[in-house]
Amino acid sequence: MTQQQRQALEELLRHGPLDVGGDIAEQRVIFQEMISAVPLPDDVSAKRGELGGVPVETVETPGLDPSVVVLYFHGGAYALGSAADSVGLAADVSRRVGARAISVDYRLAPEHPFPAALDDAVAAYRALLGEGVPSTRIAFVGESAGGGLVVAALAALRNADLPQPSSAAVFSPWADLTVSGASATGKAALDPALTPAALRTRARDYLGERDAATPLASPIFADLTDLPPLLIQVGSHEILLDDAIRLAARAADHDVPVELQVWPEVPHVFQGFAALLDDADRALNSAAAFIKRNWAA
Amino acid sequence: MTQQQRQALEELLRHGPLDVGGDIAEQRVIFQEMISAVPLPDDVSAKRGELGGVPVETVETPGLDPSVVVLYFHGGAYALGSAADSVGLAADVSRRVGARAISVDYRLAPEHPFPAALDDAVAAYRALLGEGVPSTRIAFVGESAGGGLVVAALAALRNADLPQPSSAAVFSPWADLTVSGASATGKAALDPALTPAALRTRARDYLGERDAATPLASPIFADLTDLPPLLIQVGSHEILLDDAIRLAARAADHDVPVELQVWPEVPHVFQGFAALLDDADRALNSAAAFIKRNWAA
Repeated sequence: MTQQQRQALEELLRHGPLDVGGDIAEQRVIFQEMISAVPLPDDVSAKRGELGGVPVETVETPGLDPSVVVLYFHGGAYALGSAADSVGLAADVSRRVGARAISVDYRLAPEHPFPAALDDAVAAYRALLGEGVPSTRIAFVGESAGGGLVVAALAALRNADLPQPSSAAVFSPWADLTVSGASATGKAALDPALTPAALRTRARDYLGERDAATPLASPIFADLTDLPPLLIQVGSHEILLDDAIRLAARAADHDVPVELQVWPEVPHVFQGFAALLDDADRALNSAAAFIKRNWAA
Repeated sequence: MTQQQRQALEELLRHGPLDVGGDIAEQRVIFQEMISAVPLPDDVSAKRGELGGVPVETVETPGLDPSVVVLYFHGGAYALGSAADSVGLAADVSRRVGARAISVDYRLAPEHPFPAALDDAVAAYRALLGEGVPSTRIAFVGESAGGGLVVAALAALRNADLPQPSSAAVFSPWADLTVSGASATGKAALDPALTPAALRTRARDYLGERDAATPLASPIFADLTDLPPLLIQVGSHEILLDDAIRLAARAADHDVPVELQVWPEVPHVFQGFAALLDDADRALNSAAAFIKRNWAA
């Protein structure tokens, strides 16, 4: 069953219209259509708002604990996607964690290159603290570029002497904008969603004239000392497999409590396909358990 | 509290008499004395026996499920330790998993170099299957060299067309007898228990004239295809940190469902110190949950 599900999802992605490295205006539309193809359950509410001057979508599901918050960062290679597009996956996280998810509509490249997204992430978190939510009751969650952004933001918070959130969970983080992991070529034939060329195009949009190894753009090169417990989930059929592994290695070297989960034969951000794939459901449950465990501690 | 516990354990190890690279006869005695310093709880039973011609200690704790078995592989750099020495940690695993632990007294180097230990591991497992225990009701657990041996044995079982056990959990596996990980030097000052020189001495004992990169001696170089779910736990204060990370990377590349947990600021096989260290207790509980989850599946 699971094997059939994996194959169906791979086919869906492989033959889909999304080209992450393609024309920005076109791909933003395609990305939005693809990601919102599965209708939201009736019990999900999403409200537009702002946090520290940054637009956000606050996503709620029934029965949540109002004292805890997931600060959520969507994917899209820093150039595509939006908080509104991410409501489905943010709701899946919200429901399992039992917390509202505030999805941050950080500014996108190429219109707003680095460090615009990072500044927005820090501003939103700072505002949440300013509203009186304790850092120990906040968890960060991010997918793809949003996962890299989560880790970069944690390093930026540490640099700014702000308290760390209780934990962070990242799904298929894009953590190396130099696109130099062995899996960038080694898994290229197996990855139905991303190509190294597409990532390099979007990295250039985000970086402008900066070095791709800039630590707060590519957190596998960052000082990760004093980061909170970090969960990294990744599929083995993606060119970003080595981003996850090198991020875990870097965090481990810097004494961060880090947990890496590799889910075999599934693609980039497979958690976004919980309606099709049992593995996605299991991975989301595991991420939720991790977040709740770190609130309790 | 946890920080104090970590420091106390580090001091204990740093100033202890064990020198893993020292004279074999002396160090076997010291290893035995050190590892059996904590008395066994009264409710633990250990019985000597054999399995496929290999001596074993069968460790039982109250209330266990007789249908499931942990096949346990002790540490000691392939030259020190024994099934009897390992009863304490095997009992800690047995109690949390709710299964008897059969600790394999595989032959030691230098008297019995590679592949003697591996042959014993495979023989014991084969005999267990022969007794009618289904592979799906067996989990492998190993610490240090026993962790490397677990992964090598899984690859050997695959090569021999034997069924895989349900899962494997390894604590601080020694998986690279070339001792070439970055942490071999990078964490040397922080590791209170092991040195690269000691490991190289024992590697030579185990390997005889063979290449240290022999895949079934150093499973970071092995084909890990078709291995069962693998949990790897490691401390960040050990020179074997990179063995764990590279083993996770290799398993991930070969589509193994793999989970890596890095526990910060704790030493080699910290799980052996559950009486002193809350982290050890948590790690053992997490390993037990992993094993039980994979039986259930």
